[in-house]
This record gives sequence, C-alpha cells and structure tokens, in this order.
Amino acid sequence: MSLPSILTRIDASMPAALERLMDLLRIKSISTDPAFAGDCEAAADWLVDDLQSLGLAAEKRKTPGHPMVVAHGGPEGAPHLLFYGHYDVQPVDPLELWERDPFDPEVQDTPKGQVIRARGASDDKGQLMTFLEALRAWKAETGTLPCKLTIFFEGEEESGSPSLIPFMKENAEELKADVALICDTGLFDSKVPAIITQLRGLLGEELTITGPSKDLHSGMYGGLAINPIRVLTRILAALHDETGRVTVPGFYEGVPEIGDNMKKSWEALGFDEKSFLGDVGLSERAGEKGRMALEQLWSRPTCEINGISGGYTGDGFKTVLPSQASAKVSFRLVGTQNPEAIRASFRKMVQEMLPPDCTVAFTPHSSGPAGQMDTSGAAFETARLALTEEWGVEAAYVGCGGSIPIAGYFKSILGMDAMLIGFGKDDDQIHSPNEKYDVESFHKGTRSWARILAALSA
Amino acid sequence: MSLPSILTRIDASMPAALERLMDLLRIKSISTDPAFAGDCEAAADWLVDDLQSLGLAAEKRKTPGHPMVVAHGGPEGAPHLLFYGHYDVQPVDPLELWERDPFDPEVQDTPKGQVIRARGASDDKGQLMTFLEALRAWKAETGTLPCKLTIFFEGEEESGSPSLIPFMKENAEELKADVALICDTGLFDSKVPAIITQLRGLLGEELTITGPSKDLHSGMYGGLAINPIRVLTRILAALHDETGRVTVPGFYEGVPEIGDNMKKSWEALGFDEKSFLGDVGLSERAGEKGRMALEQLWSRPTCEINGISGGYTGDGFKTVLPSQASAKVSFRLVGTQNPEAIRASFRKMVQEMLPPDCTVAFTPHSSGPAGQMDTSGAAFETARLALTEEWGVEAAYVGCGGSIPIAGYFKSILGMDAMLIGFGKDDDQIHSPNEKYDVESFHKGTRSWARILAALSA
Repeated sequence: MSLPSILTRIDASMPAALERLMDLLRIKSISTDPAFAGDCEAAADWLVDDLQSLGLAAEKRKTPGHPMVVAHGGPEGAPHLLFYGHYDVQPVDPLELWERDPFDPEVQDTPKGQVIRARGASDDKGQLMTFLEALRAWKAETGTLPCKLTIFFEGEEESGSPSLIPFMKENAEELKADVALICDTGLFDSKVPAIITQLRGLLGEELTITGPSKDLHSGMYGGLAINPIRVLTRILAALHDETGRVTVPGFYEGVPEIGDNMKKSWEALGFDEKSFLGDVGLSERAGEKGRMALEQLWSRPTCEINGISGGYTGDGFKTVLPSQASAKVSFRLVGTQNPEAIRASFRKMVQEMLPPDCTVAFTPHSSGPAGQMDTSGAAFETARLALTEEWGVEAAYVGCGGSIPIAGYFKSILGMDAMLIGFGKDDDQIHSPNEKYDVESFHKGTRSWARILAALSA
Repeated sequence: MSLPSILTRIDASMPAALERLMDLLRIKSISTDPAFAGDCEAAADWLVDDLQSLGLAAEKRKTPGHPMVVAHGGPEGAPHLLFYGHYDVQPVDPLELWERDPFDPEVQDTPKGQVIRARGASDDKGQLMTFLEALRAWKAETGTLPCKLTIFFEGEEESGSPSLIPFMKENAEELKADVALICDTGLFDSKVPAIITQLRGLLGEELTITGPSKDLHSGMYGGLAINPIRVLTRILAALHDETGRVTVPGFYEGVPEIGDNMKKSWEALGFDEKSFLGDVGLSERAGEKGRMALEQLWSRPTCEINGISGGYTGDGFKTVLPSQASAKVSFRLVGTQNPEAIRASFRKMVQEMLPPDCTVAFTPHSSGPAGQMDTSGAAFETARLALTEEWGVEAAYVGCGGSIPIAGYFKSILGMDAMLIGFGKDDDQIHSPNEKYDVESFHKGTRSWARILAALSA
C-alpha cells in the first residue's frame, strides 16, 4: 500500500467522483413522505450496485419501512470497521426558496469556493460517498480493500429511524465490528477537523394541566376559578433558579465536571462565541453562570421549554379561562444522568406544585442517556493524527450539544465505540433550502478517510 | 291607568305574545356572517312594524353594518325612558348539537317548566319582547303609552358592535333620555330578580417576546441561547404574589372596599358557591385570599392569562428553541382603576423584567373602565320595589363580573345611568346549542316591565 499514490488517485478522480455523487443526489429519496418510497428503493439499489463495484458483498435488506443496505468485504483480520451513513434526505419544502431544483445537482463557484448544491449534498449523501470514494481509490491502487469492512446504510434517518433498533437487534451478530465510523457530523469550524467524543442525551416530556372541566368566561369566573395557564407558567418558571441551574430534585446526579485537560483543549479551540451568538441575533450568553461557552453546549445539562399552548391564541382577543394548558419540556443530559429517574423526579415536582382542583397528564417523549466515547483505545488517537495530517491543523476531540442516537445504539446493542467524523460546515444549510456541500469537504473528506484507513489498518 | 287590569291582560295575551316572539325568532338574524345580512334587515323591518303597531314613530336607520331601529313616542313629560335591546343573534354551529332547527322555535314542556326553544330566545329577542309586550298591554288597556319613550335596538351586538359608538355620537341629542333600561342580563338566580349596579371594566394586552432572530435547535444552542418561552413564563408567573394579589405597580389605585351595607346585602343573597364551582368541575375558590366569593367576582380586579403560545405545539416533539413566544393577558377592573395607566405600568414592568437580547412588542386590545351606577336616584329603588312585588322576593342590587360596554356608553356618550334588568337564567344556553328562554321569564318579565313602567311614570 502506498498512501501517497492513493491520495494522488483521489485527487485525479475528483471529477468522476463528483459525477457519481450527483447521480446519487438526483434520486429523490425523501424518507418521510410515502410518495417517495420508490425513490428510497432506488437510492438503496444504487448504493448496492456501487458497493458491489468495490468488490463488497452488498445487498438491500427489507424492513417494515425503507430498506437497509448492508455490505461486507475486505481482507479477514483486525481491524474490522463498520461504516454508517444514511441515504435518505429531508423534504424540500418550501420549494420556492430554492434557487434551483433540489434534485438537479450542480457544482457551483461561490466566493468561498466550489460547492455541490442539492438536497442531501451534505446530509448525508456527500458525506457517505467520501468513504466509498476512499475505498474506490484504495481498491484501484492496490487491488484490494484496506481491512475487513461492514458497510451499513439506513434510509430512515430523517424520519425517526423506526426500523433501526429492531434491525440492529435482529442482525447484531452480523453487524458487530471492532469500531464504528459514522460520517454524519461536521468539522469543528471550516478549517479544524474533529472527532466527537461526547454527545448529550435527551429526555422529552409533555405536560397538560387541567383546571375547570370546560372553558370559562373570565367575566363570569375570573378571580375565583383556577386558571391552568397561570398554574403552568408558575411551574415552568420554577424549573430554573436565579443562577440558571435546573431545580428538579436530583437533576445534577451523575453530572461530571470536565477535567483540566479537556477544559484546556476546548479553550484552545478558540470558539468564536461572539459570532456564534451574533449569527442568531444574540449578544450575550444566557443559561448557567460561571461556565465557558463550549462547556455549556457540550457538557452541561439543560432544561428547555420547546412549546407551550393554552387558551385563545388566534387573532384578536377572547376573555377565556381555558380548561387546559400544555407545554413540551426537554432536558439535555450529560455524564451518567439517568433519563427515567429525572422524568420521575420532574413529574413528582410538578405534582407537588399543583394547586387544588388541578390535575396533570404527562406524555413521555424521547429518552436517551448521554454518550461518552472511550477514547483510550488506540483507534481514536490514530484517527485524530490522520485527520491532523490531512488538514494541517490539530484535529480536536469535541463534544456535541445534540443527541445522535445511532452512536448510542452501536454501544448499547453492538458493544462498539463509535467515532463520529464528518466534514460538514456550519453553512451547509442541511434541512433547509439550498443545501450544499463544499467540494473541499468532499475532496479532503475522501482523503481523510484514506489516511484514517491506512493508519488504522497499518 | 289600572295596573291590575294591565297585568291581567298580559296573562291573557301570553299565547298571542308567544306567537309574535316565535315570528321574530324565525328570522335568521346572525350578525357576524354576511350571508345573513338580509335576515338582519328583515328582523329590523319586523321590529319597525311592531313598534309602529304600538303607536311609536319607528324607523330603520342605516349604518355601515346592520341597521339600528329607533322609535319615539308616548306622552311628553318626565320620565323619558330609553329602552335598549339587540335583534341579532349568535351563529348556530355546531348545528348537529341542536335537537331541532334553531330557527324553528317551539314551546316545549320540560321538567322545570315550559321553555321557548330557539336561537335568540333568551339572547336577546325574548328579552326585548318582554318590554314591547308590556307596552302592548298598556296601550290596549289605556289607549296610550305610560311615558315618553325612546326605543333603541341594535343588530351588531353579537359581532362587536362596530357601528354603535359612531351612531350614538352622531345621534346623541336624539337618543338622550332620563334613564336607560337594558334588558340583556339575567336574574340573580332562577327565583331572585336583580338590577346590576356595577360592572367590571376590561383591559386586554398582548405581548410577544423575541429572543434569537430565528428558531434554533436545542441541541446546538440549548444552555447558551436565551429561550423566549422561559422569559415569558417567568414574567407571567410574577404577575401575582403568593396571596393572589396582582403585582403590577399601582394596580390597586382606585380599588374601593365594598361598604358594609353592600357586603351584608351580597351575603344575604346566599350565593351557592359550591354548586357554582361544582358545575365546572372545581371544589375550591382560587384567587385572592380573604374575600367572599361574590366580592371576588363583582368588586375585585383580576389579571388573567387568556392565551399563550410559543414553539412547537403540534403532535410529537420538536427540540426547538423558538425565536418568539406570546401571551394574551387581560385585566378586569373595578372602581376608578385607570385602564391606560395600568396598561402603561404593566408594559413598564414587563420591560424591566426582560433579560439582555430580548425585546417585547405589545398589541393593545379592549380597554374600558369599570361601571358604577348611581343608585341614589329614585328610579333604581322604584324599579327594585316593582321587581320585588312581581317576583315575591326581595330584588337585589348585584354586580357583574363581566363588562357590558353599552352601559358605559350610555353614561359616557349620553350622560345617562342605565338600569340593567333582565330575566335570563343560568341554564339558558345562550351562545350555545339548544338555547331556550323560560316561558316564566317571558311572562313575569313582561309583567315586571309593566310594574316598573307604572312605578316610574306614577
């Protein structure tokens, strides 16, 4: 194996690689809309064909929803890598905000460089193709693949992954590998590559408070009848104290302080807090006092109200005292915080704050603990150094404020750690009109995988 | 004039009076729906004809909306009474909940006595006809009318009365009288007649708090970006203290304590708090501590949240940190509380509670001070005694928790006090399917007016 020659081949193959990506981008694989079920099948078929052309034993696997694509191949032995991506894309509405047909991809010149413009260019077709293009160059240059490989593509990531857990459980033996690689995230910023090593968990809870048995007129009952909106606002307002800490009893059990090393390395990232906030019209950090910005985003738990409704909310005014008021509350979790223990404590706190004549009904929503990768295995540092070489700047271990459930499933169902490495940029407009993927992301992403594969299989 | 013979004639004329009311109830005078504009005209024409048959000079008067009906007549001299009612009715949907066609009125036998079932039977066609039937009996028995009269019927009461204030201002000289009689309210309970002598005022205010310039993802920004729903709940929760008092600075300026006499007379009414609350699924009074129930409803000011919205409120869950959150807040006012001063104080309080990076926009809604009738004039006590004679139980001076703007307009535009005397019952289902008016209300209401007219013109 000669890494330099593989990288050279990647450089030379870029025009052809972009053509292949654009072929895949033309397939309207919107998973959430049943009208596009045939397109999802077509995208899976396209990938099976492409994987077979790389010498992998690939097949489309049925699920109650859209198919999975699973492929195996490469020389027996360690390491055995599993690569995950998803071929489905977000819906495209509002279509009128797109500058061109979202499924007619084009390479465009922009002031910041060339981009591939299309729905799914960044999320996740462009990203998953970086891995396949790295394999293609490897195979062309060496006649074989770098190591034992399992490829696992899903077609329901943008619609809640209903088939994912059952499929992983039913095929656990087949899918197990030494480490998982997930390419569905971004660079730390446009120049700094990153491996995500911690993800926040998520707990969703909906509560509906009922007071009177029907809507009342505030002229007739106001001053005497309990108003569930007032009860709700009082409870929600009590979920944080004056310093921004969450008041749910026991909430901070299992919340670790970040170590000095982590703190220093995050400080070294030079996170541009001012522009991060400024981009969304803010000038000051809210939330817990006495924490650095990245700590707030990556390693501190939160409680947020994501929706609230009650009474009359149309145009004009109606002097109603409503029977009910509702809110959707979510918690981002870190460390070993226990989602179900927090759900129970939250419910108890709400119950205890209820005045007479009020009842509360809870609807549980998503629940998953935080994810913490064990970076002590050699693979993480090996991959980080490979990324550093490609990008010419120290690659970072970073956190992620969101929740990427697949990483947790690899751990809980298959017992594997996952490395989340991706090349998306903040301005890729994923889930929005005019999605794009930088040609630089595609090109250097492909080269990054070649380097990582070389390093891991050395 | 012989009151007993007039009352006897009223008794004897009930079948014919019910037929006339049912004629009027057959007219579909729904004011809010333009499809029924012709029916509103027809109702006004019907009333003009009926008033003319009583010897009054009646005419339909154009407005930008539905017409007013104005009539004058009766012997010159004091007192000069103005009688107000409205001929328009509420919409009838949901139609499927009606047991029969809402515009095919019928006298029905029920366990509680005979009722007239139709849209508008109680609100307000049945009520306004009590006055006309009293005049008809008077005229038939005496050949003349009891006193100088102005009749004023509106056709937009159920759709916000857009033409009312301009019409009253333009025709102020013509409409002025010594005292106004309004028949659009109810008995205190099914056996006790009442004159409403105080009405709460109303102030409506909508506020929208904006934080980030666009909706954010709580995984990406949660813990660091300000959440306007949290800001809103904190502000709204601070509008009352632990004893239920409103915290807006200056709010209680102009709020009188009720006198001992009023308190005793309200206590004597034996208000059935338990069944009032029990009917709507409540068991305990909320609101200000240390007040009697009728005091809370009639003579204490309130602050209520009538609507709240923000973020994602559909099915399922979305981990959004919204850009905006809104609420509709209303205040019921008493005594000499100044609506615009309270509006200003409320806005200042909200502004002062806003954290950095948040802005608030206010939309003013209805505003009107409380109404307090001057019951020291002889007319009130004269009318109260006449009601007491008819019903055989002491008639009460009561308050009203709601706001009946017309009473305030008679005072502010025409300088007249208004006596609100009506015969509706709590179970009349006004504004709801299967509206009814008790034949007892219609019959004794008519007799009540005959007695009141006799007493006032004596």
